[in-house]
Parts: sequence; C-alpha cells; structure tokens
Amino acid sequence: MAPDLQGMGGGGDDKRRTVHEEVPLVHKVHVPPRGGLVKDVSHGLWETFFHDAPLRQFKGQSKHSKSWLGLKFVFPLLEWITTYTPRMFVSDFIAGLTIASLAIPQDLGYAKLAGVPSVNGLYSSFVPPLVYALLGSSRDIAIGPVAVVSLLLGTLLKQELSPTKQPQLYLQLAFTATFFAGLFQTALGLLRLGFVIQFLSHAAIVGFMAGAAVTISLQQLKGLLNITHFTTDTDFISVMTSVFQNTNEWNWRSIVIGLAFLSFLVLTKILAKKKPKLFWVSAISPLISVVLATLFVFIFRVDKYGVKVVGNIKKGVNPSSADQIFFTGKYVTAGAKIGFVAALIALTEGVAIGRTFAALRDYHIDGNKEMIAFGIMNICGSVTSCYVATGSFSRSAVNYQAGVKTAMSNIVMAIVVLITLVALTPLFKYTPNTILAAIIISAVISLVDFKAAWLIWKIDKFDFLATLGAFFGVFFVSVEIGLLVAVCISFVKILFNVTRPHTARLGNIPGTKVYRNILQYPDATLPHGIVAVRLDAAIYFSNSQYIHDKVLRYLEDETERVAKTGGPRIEYLIVDLTPVTNIDTSGIIAFEELHRILVKRNVQLAFANPGSQVIQKFDSSGYLTTLGSEWIFFSVAEGVQVCSVLLNKSAAERSV
Amino acid sequence: MAPDLQGMGGGGDDKRRTVHEEVPLVHKVHVPPRGGLVKDVSHGLWETFFHDAPLRQFKGQSKHSKSWLGLKFVFPLLEWITTYTPRMFVSDFIAGLTIASLAIPQDLGYAKLAGVPSVNGLYSSFVPPLVYALLGSSRDIAIGPVAVVSLLLGTLLKQELSPTKQPQLYLQLAFTATFFAGLFQTALGLLRLGFVIQFLSHAAIVGFMAGAAVTISLQQLKGLLNITHFTTDTDFISVMTSVFQNTNEWNWRSIVIGLAFLSFLVLTKILAKKKPKLFWVSAISPLISVVLATLFVFIFRVDKYGVKVVGNIKKGVNPSSADQIFFTGKYVTAGAKIGFVAALIALTEGVAIGRTFAALRDYHIDGNKEMIAFGIMNICGSVTSCYVATGSFSRSAVNYQAGVKTAMSNIVMAIVVLITLVALTPLFKYTPNTILAAIIISAVISLVDFKAAWLIWKIDKFDFLATLGAFFGVFFVSVEIGLLVAVCISFVKILFNVTRPHTARLGNIPGTKVYRNILQYPDATLPHGIVAVRLDAAIYFSNSQYIHDKVLRYLEDETERVAKTGGPRIEYLIVDLTPVTNIDTSGIIAFEELHRILVKRNVQLAFANPGSQVIQKFDSSGYLTTLGSEWIFFSVAEGVQVCSVLLNKSAAERSV
Repeated sequence: MAPDLQGMGGGGDDKRRTVHEEVPLVHKVHVPPRGGLVKDVSHGLWETFFHDAPLRQFKGQSKHSKSWLGLKFVFPLLEWITTYTPRMFVSDFIAGLTIASLAIPQDLGYAKLAGVPSVNGLYSSFVPPLVYALLGSSRDIAIGPVAVVSLLLGTLLKQELSPTKQPQLYLQLAFTATFFAGLFQTALGLLRLGFVIQFLSHAAIVGFMAGAAVTISLQQLKGLLNITHFTTDTDFISVMTSVFQNTNEWNWRSIVIGLAFLSFLVLTKILAKKKPKLFWVSAISPLISVVLATLFVFIFRVDKYGVKVVGNIKKGVNPSSADQIFFTGKYVTAGAKIGFVAALIALTEGVAIGRTFAALRDYHIDGNKEMIAFGIMNICGSVTSCYVATGSFSRSAVNYQAGVKTAMSNIVMAIVVLITLVALTPLFKYTPNTILAAIIISAVISLVDFKAAWLIWKIDKFDFLATLGAFFGVFFVSVEIGLLVAVCISFVKILFNVTRPHTARLGNIPGTKVYRNILQYPDATLPHGIVAVRLDAAIYFSNSQYIHDKVLRYLEDETERVAKTGGPRIEYLIVDLTPVTNIDTSGIIAFEELHRILVKRNVQLAFANPGSQVIQKFDSSGYLTTLGSEWIFFSVAEGVQVCSVLLNKSAAERSV
Repeated sequence: MAPDLQGMGGGGDDKRRTVHEEVPLVHKVHVPPRGGLVKDVSHGLWETFFHDAPLRQFKGQSKHSKSWLGLKFVFPLLEWITTYTPRMFVSDFIAGLTIASLAIPQDLGYAKLAGVPSVNGLYSSFVPPLVYALLGSSRDIAIGPVAVVSLLLGTLLKQELSPTKQPQLYLQLAFTATFFAGLFQTALGLLRLGFVIQFLSHAAIVGFMAGAAVTISLQQLKGLLNITHFTTDTDFISVMTSVFQNTNEWNWRSIVIGLAFLSFLVLTKILAKKKPKLFWVSAISPLISVVLATLFVFIFRVDKYGVKVVGNIKKGVNPSSADQIFFTGKYVTAGAKIGFVAALIALTEGVAIGRTFAALRDYHIDGNKEMIAFGIMNICGSVTSCYVATGSFSRSAVNYQAGVKTAMSNIVMAIVVLITLVALTPLFKYTPNTILAAIIISAVISLVDFKAAWLIWKIDKFDFLATLGAFFGVFFVSVEIGLLVAVCISFVKILFNVTRPHTARLGNIPGTKVYRNILQYPDATLPHGIVAVRLDAAIYFSNSQYIHDKVLRYLEDETERVAKTGGPRIEYLIVDLTPVTNIDTSGIIAFEELHRILVKRNVQLAFANPGSQVIQKFDSSGYLTTLGSEWIFFSVAEGVQVCSVLLNKSAAERSV
C-alpha cells in the first residue's frame, strides 16, 4: 500500500562520501550466498517441527539395526525390557504397590468430580497405564485419572447434560470427549505441534492449578459435610451459599470421621516433608484411612444414621464402550470441543511431569512422542469405559520417591487395580464418602504452590498478575473461565513482547572495544557526533513501526541534549543489528523510511554486524544499494572508528 | 506445577572451583539496584503506550505557552493557520480543485459498492474532510469514501439486510456501523492502542489490497456491461457465472462507451507515470470523461436504448441522520461488529498514507492522535448521512503531486462538493453508470502492486505466502475471508517467531576479541573443551523449552563430534545472553533444569553479558547463588579466557 515514491523523495545521495577511500576497513560483512527457496523453506520447517532431531539416532546405521531402533522408537518398552533385572523388578513392584494404594481411593473420588460412576475411575487406572507402559518414554510417571482434568471434564460435561437426570447420555458424552481428547493428542504429536502447550505460561499454570486445587477442595465439602443438595456450580460464592443454606443436611458423624482422617493424612504429609525417608507413611496413609474408616462404618453401622457410603460398585473388568461413543448426532461437536480442552490440559500436566523427572535422572523425553503415547492411551481408554487419564502429579512424585526404575510400576499398579475390580470392590460398600473427600483434599492441596507463587512475585510482577488472574478466574467463576484468563494473559504478554522490543543506546566501555547499554554501564561513552543504538529483536511487521520511531527518538533526544550543551552536530547514527536475526518486508520498508528521513536531516545511517539473513534481505530488496554497502560495518567498534576519522577530517576541513 | 525437588537433584556442588582465586576477572557484571514495583510497572506501561512521548513538547514550558501548545495539540489546524500565506492558498486551492474533480465521480461509484444511494457518497466527501482539516495532522492526505472500505462495508451490510428490499433499514445500519467505526477509532486513539493495526503484516496487506482491487473491478462489470440481475456475492466464480448467464442483458452501447473511456483513463495514467509533470492530465481525465459521456448520452439519448444512467440525485446539503442510528434493538450488535472491522481497515489505510507522506516531507505524525481525528470525523459523518470515510490512497497521491501545502485543500474540496450538492447534481442525471465503472476500475487497479509483491517474493518466501493467501481469499471467497486469512497468517508468523527463536554457535574471529556465529563466519574458532552459544531472543514461556533443548543439542552435537575425532572432553558451556533482554519465570526454570542436567554431565555452565533485567532476575530467583556468580562473565571473550586457563590447569594437573 506504500505509494509509488519514484521522483518523490530521495535527494542528498550526491553527498555520499566513499568511505573506503578514506578509511580502510579491518573487516567486511559479505552477503552470503543465498540458500534458494527450497533450502530456506525446508530449513525453517525443520527448525519448527524437528529441532530436537528425533530421528538422529538412525543416521548411519545398518538396515538391521535401523529396524530394531525403529521398533524401540515406537515401543520404548523394548528400550529397557531387554536389560531388565529381578532387582529392578523388586523396586518397580514396591513402587507399583505404593501408587496403587494411592490411586484406588483417589480414583473413586476423582470419578465423582468428573460426574461419572466411581467404577469408571478405577477402569481408568487399568487400561491407560498398560498402554502407556508400552508406548511412553517416561520411567517415573504414574498414569491414571487426575484431579484437575476430572474437574474440568465434569464442569464442561455438565454444561451439556445432567449426570443425575441423563446418566447414560452423560457417560456416553464422557467417552466421546475422551476419544476426541486422545485423537487430538495423537494428532498434535504426529504433526509435531507439541509446542502449542508451551503457550500457557508457567505463571498462569501456577495460578490455574492453585485455583483448581482450592475449587476441588471446596467441592469436597459435599462429601465431608454429607450434603445431598449441593450446587453444580464450582465458584466460591455458589459453593459457600450451598453449604450454609443446607446446614440441616450436615451430619456430625460424617464431619468427625472426615476431619479426623484429614488431620491424620495432613500430619503424615508434614512428616514426609520433614523426613523424606518416611515418605511411605504418607503414601500408604490414604489406604490405611480407607480401611479403618470402612471398618468403623461396618462395625458401628453409622450409615444407618445418614453417613453416606460408596455403596455397591459393579464387579468385573472394564466393559467395552466402543458402541457408546457418539460419532454422529448433536453431541459430536460438544464432545470434540470438550475433548480438545481436556486434551490440552492433560498434556500440559502429563508432559511437564515427564520432563521434570527426566531432567532429574538425565534421560531424554521427546514431547511429541509422549503426546502420541498419551493420545493412543486415551483412545484405547475411550473404548474400554475409561475417561481422560494423564500423568498424576502427586502419584508420580511418590513413584519416584519409592524408587521406581521403569514403567513396570504402572503395570504392577494396573494389575492391583485389576484384582480390585474383579474381587475387592464389595469391600468398598461401607467406605464413607467423607473419607474420599478427605483423601482428595490432602492430595490436591499440594497443587497450591506458595513457593512458586512467591518466586514469581520476586522475579516478575507482570507474571504474578497472570498467576492471580488465573487463580481468581477459577476461584470466583469456573475452571473454564480461569483457563481462558490464563490463556488470554499469556497471549497478551506475547503480543506486548512482539510489539515493544527492547532497544538500547550504546556506549564504549573504556579500555575495551566493547559497546554496551549506557543505562546498565553508565561509564560507557561515545565520541561526539555519533549515536549508536542496539535493536534487541528480530524486526517484523508487528514491531517495525515502533523500532523506526524509537531509533528516531534516540536521535532526537541526543540532538536536543547536544543543542543544550552546545556540542557538535550529530552526523552519524550507527544501528547495531547483532541481535536482529531476521527482518521481513515491513522491517525493510521501515528502514527505507528511516534512511529517507535521515538523508533529509543530513545524518548518515550505518549498520553494524547484520546477521546473514538480514544482510541477504538488505541485498535482495535493493536496500543495500540505496544505503551504500560501505555503511555496513563488521562491528560497532569499527563503525565508530571509521565515523570518528570522517568526523575529524570534516572538522579539519571546516577549520581550514 | 514443578514438583518439589528438595533432596531429589543436586550433587556435584562440591566440585565447584572458585574461579576468582585462579583467574582474576577483568570486568565484573554487577546486579543493578532494583527499580521497585511501581517503577518497573510504570516503565513497562510507559514504553507500551507512550514510547513516542507525545507530550514532550510541553515539558518546561510556561503556563501560557502550555495552553497554546495544548490548543495546537488538539487542533493541528492552529499549527499552520497562523503562518498561512496567500501563496500557500494558491497551491492548496489548485490541489483541492484537482482532488474534488477526482472525488466526485469516484464517490458516486463507491457509494454503489457500499450499497448506499450515490448521494451519500457525495455527503461523505463534504463533512469528514472539514472535520479532518480541523483535527488531523497530515497535510497531504485526501479524505473521503475509499474503494476497499466501501466494498468491505457493502459485503458486511448485505449479510444483514438487502439494500434493494430494505433500503431504509440498510442505510440506517450503514450509519450505525459508521458511528461505531468512529467510536472504535476514537477509543483506540484515546487508549493509545494504535499499535493493533500493526498486527496486519505488510505482505498480507499487499495481497489483501490487490484482491480487493480485482474484486472491485469485477464488480464494475455490472455497470460496464449494463447488467441488471447481478449476483450479490463478490467471489470470482459467482461474478463470472452471473456475467455469462446474463449475456442477454449486455448492452453494446454501454460496453463501447465504457471501454472507450477506460482506455482513455488508462492511457492518461500511463502518460502520467512516464512524465510525472503531466500528472494533472490523469488527475482531471475522470472529470473530462464524465462530462463527455454525459453530454453524449444527453445528445444521443442512448439511455432510451437501455444504457443505465445515474438519474436524479437528491439536491441539497447533508441532512441529519442522528435519529436514524440504531442505539437499541437487534441491529446494534451487527452495526458494532461491522463498524469494528471497517474501523480497523479504514485506519490501516488512512494511517499508513499519512505516515508515508509525512516521511516524504519529514514531519511527524502521531498515529494515535490521527486515530482520534479519524474517529471524531466518522462520528460526525454518521450523524450527517455519511458512511465510513478515510484517507484515499489515489487521491492523496494526486494531492501531493498537485503541490498541496496544508489540509486547506480538503476544505477546498469540501466546498466544491458542497457546490455540487446544492447546485450541480441535476447535471449527473444523464451520466451513464458505465463511465463510473470505468473510473473506478482505473482508480483501483493501481492497488494491485506487482512491484511490492515482487519485492516480497525476493525478500521473504513465507511473507509471499501471506500475500498469496490474502489475495486468493478475497478473490475466490470474499473480502471478509481474505481479511481473516491475512490476520491469521500474520498471527501464525508471530507465533512461530516467538516459539522458535534464533540461536547460534559462536566462534572467535581470529585476531579480534569478537565472537560470531560460526555458520556466518566459518573461520571463527574456539579452544577445545569449550562450547559457546548465543541466544537471540528474550526468553519467555513460549520459547524456554525450545531454548533449553537447543542448547543441549549444541552440546550433544559437539560432544559427538569430539568423540569421533578423539579430542578432549567438553568441560565448559558458555551461553551468550547479549540479545536476551528479559527472562520470565519459565525461562529461569528452564535454565535451572539446564544447570541440573549439566551438573550431572560434569559440564560447567557459564553465562556471558546478561542484561540488567536478566541478572536481576537471576539474582532474585536465587539462580545466581545456585550457579555461582563467578560463572557470569562480562563477555564471551572473557569467559573463554577464564575457561581456557582453567582447562590448561586441569590438563597440567592430570599430566602430573
């Protein structure tokens, strides 16, 4: 849309001095040979999608070992199974038993959060861990339903259907959402779009998780207080209103049992934190609580006094649910949408956990491959009556502390869950709901990470705003809105970042050839008549106007200062392009305009240290010719050196 | 969500050598004093919204001159009116007459594109230019209805109402949209959010404009061929189908008149391009064409043979339309939405034109102030029967070429339009539609900027993709979809840019202390046992994982290469942070993980030249303590120097 400027601007070109004749340059910036379209584009695509070079291990291998590597690539299980020892199995067995003892009571409670029958929680701790053990790369993660995803799924599903009035349709929609979640996860991994989950900032996640944990805890008041008529909303106000409007439904027996065991659970947690070697006390305390509370109810039959119990759980292994998924009809879109949101949150949690533990033990995790593993696991889950599963934060930590060696612990856990499903479900008949509520509260409360929030506050105030926004979004509105707030704040931050890049006026550190930001190094200086500026970002349409304005502003500020102090006129403006890795057409146009303005003001524009892409684009756009290639310097130091010589010469000429 | 790592990682800390004891550092990077929350936040906000320091001229002025400056700030007219000379008026008068002669026939045609009566086109060239002359800062812009905004407005309005079946409602919706467009523009300017229009990349705009120009030209086939039953869709397929299904409606007289004058108009354009001094021939040729064609129709009465004419135009000055704007009811939302889109496109075109000519004549334009001027002008327009006006690309160029001096030329044009409205409208009764079609085609065709497209192709292939996408979106679907494509491609580019920042392995340019990308400077070298890497972007949640992976990848690649050639083990990894202007919590966490992994691998991590914000955050997060402040170097050169000494020492110890 720029008008044709032929014969409109220009002028002053005749004044151009041939620098080379006057000052010999030490170094020269050459225009590198162009890569050609295909090479350019393929390099860009490669960096975007395959920067981690996932197939590098295949390079230069024989055909036979390639196929073996290929098998190991697809089934990471083969990676460790060939060197698996009985000693390792003992470790995995203990870890597997430990996480199973945690998982079973949690599953029963999380299923309630998701609005599905308790037994589906158990199902989800059987099939998905087995699939993950085959396909996943993490050795430390514990797979199953998790609190935040369960809450999110429940909130979204309840907007479409009622779990109490249309339980069958509701369950079908849950399977549909799980199926689509798996599909999206697989697709993201296969298309190597895993980086989408990086668009949620750490700060937003901390706030979101804390909000979700508090919301989940508030939801547990239903079980803890034994309330029947509880709100389906999850915000603080609704829950509190619901709690205090139904005080007549409160049951003191339920409250006493719940609070007693909650205290016990919290105490063991504190103990484990103080003495890490005693982590197992905290790990098995939920199971102990369930056993004791169930025995108590069974013996004293307090269920006859209104204390609600889990009741009968269907016996038997996961039934098929393949025929229950909606592939047509009005619920497909809803299922896909809910699945998409659940998929992203499940990945955010699962992949982060996998990476964290991989870093602790220094092995590599390919995020995109993990997504495929999560995706296939959820697709398999959706046809075997499971809902969305992912890596559980609390159980993975226990798994690690229990000394897990490989994904075998997930298999052990799955077998324990299987035994529970086929034989032990009648034992839960008298388990009071209040104990499940206590277990969930004690599990999720560690998601409120005060230490992380404090660190964010210390490091970056804007980030802390994102944390607060996400937290209050979840706390006062809903988990959905909180998520939306978190995403929006993250994006706003990106947009501000790309429109307002950092720039700096440079000065020379005395005694060196180094030029630095004069605000950070106040003793940095520059010869009179020269202004040097550094641009600290790639120049794109989103910031080109700002950079153009900002560079002129530096010049004008300095001109004004010089005018006041009566120093010599500014004749040279050197722009350091070291950090400018790339420039687009808008950037070139902004620089053209800058050049045109400076010609009018009789100030010579020069650039220092352009990267290969930048100098190439200066060349192909013809800007290099307009500017004069003698005004491209190897470094700010050399630019200043040349300009100083020229300044001295012209001063000498003037005085003659 | 990062698990508590107390007692999980660590180790290797005891191996830390006290660098200072062994190698005295030349320079030290200090942690600068913190600015405090208020200062930090206010500086951030200031840079975002007031980087151009719009009020700097008020600084240090007396109260009296402050109020005068304030008046001039609000009414830029006062800026030039006090020094206005008769000589300048002559120039402005000629320029004003020239653009009026262009504007009047264009207005009649553009009104058709927008679907409103022709007279509203003329109204829109009367009030808005007067308001702009009072409030606007550009001296070269010509205000009025423009082709692309008219097409966009027409397309969007027709989705809500039919201009033929509900003409009154349609017109009311057009005023409503204009009102909201003005409101949005004013708000964007007042809130200093003008940078939102920078999110449309130059490349996307070039494609969008070209697509719109072709679409507008195709729309003119209706007038040129004299077709009555023309499609309301604007895509190529629909228009062509419509044209060839209605060949029976074609009128050869209309076609001959249209093509003859189109050839004339195009020829004068070519002439003006070849001999810029003859620009006035091209500038007045539309008026000449209208006069000649009208006379021809009037004398030979070809309108009796079916050649369609403009017909009666209501006589008189703009009537009030304040009572016709929807402030309540079902069309408010539609009006606001349409207004929003039209506002942004009108600003994109208008502000870009203003800036371009301001740069040519080296005066300053404040984009946000311009938006307020455009906004108030459109609000005034909406209550005086005008639709959305902005700066016209073609008329502004003519204005500039005709030697305009100030916004007075807009006033002259407005007066000519006023005279036309009150006295000359009957003269258009016999003006054939085909001549208006020819004028519009010849006006918009210069929006197809092949030169710009070729430049984009040469500079950046990805950018060219955006151009093509926007063009074909408009051409084959609609102006709306084309705009959407343009916005989406622009955003995808931003997102790729923020997730995949550039990084480089560094080497020393022989004979200097300079370290550069070894891909660009292949003769750059580094001592064995050290790897140096530069990160070329601020580190945020969106790229922290990538940067973490990429740095490790550089180390692993080099380790592999060394293992093959049998060189010494890599012991030091120096990360150059020069371009890293800021880092957030996610970035700190990524660096913490990097440090933990490198400790395991017995490689020492060091940083060179962190900016003040980065070193501050290293400090406040405690990372500086974890890493050891002795591993922060002033520059890569000093880091390499220190590490080399340490390497030599340890080699000497080993050999002893």
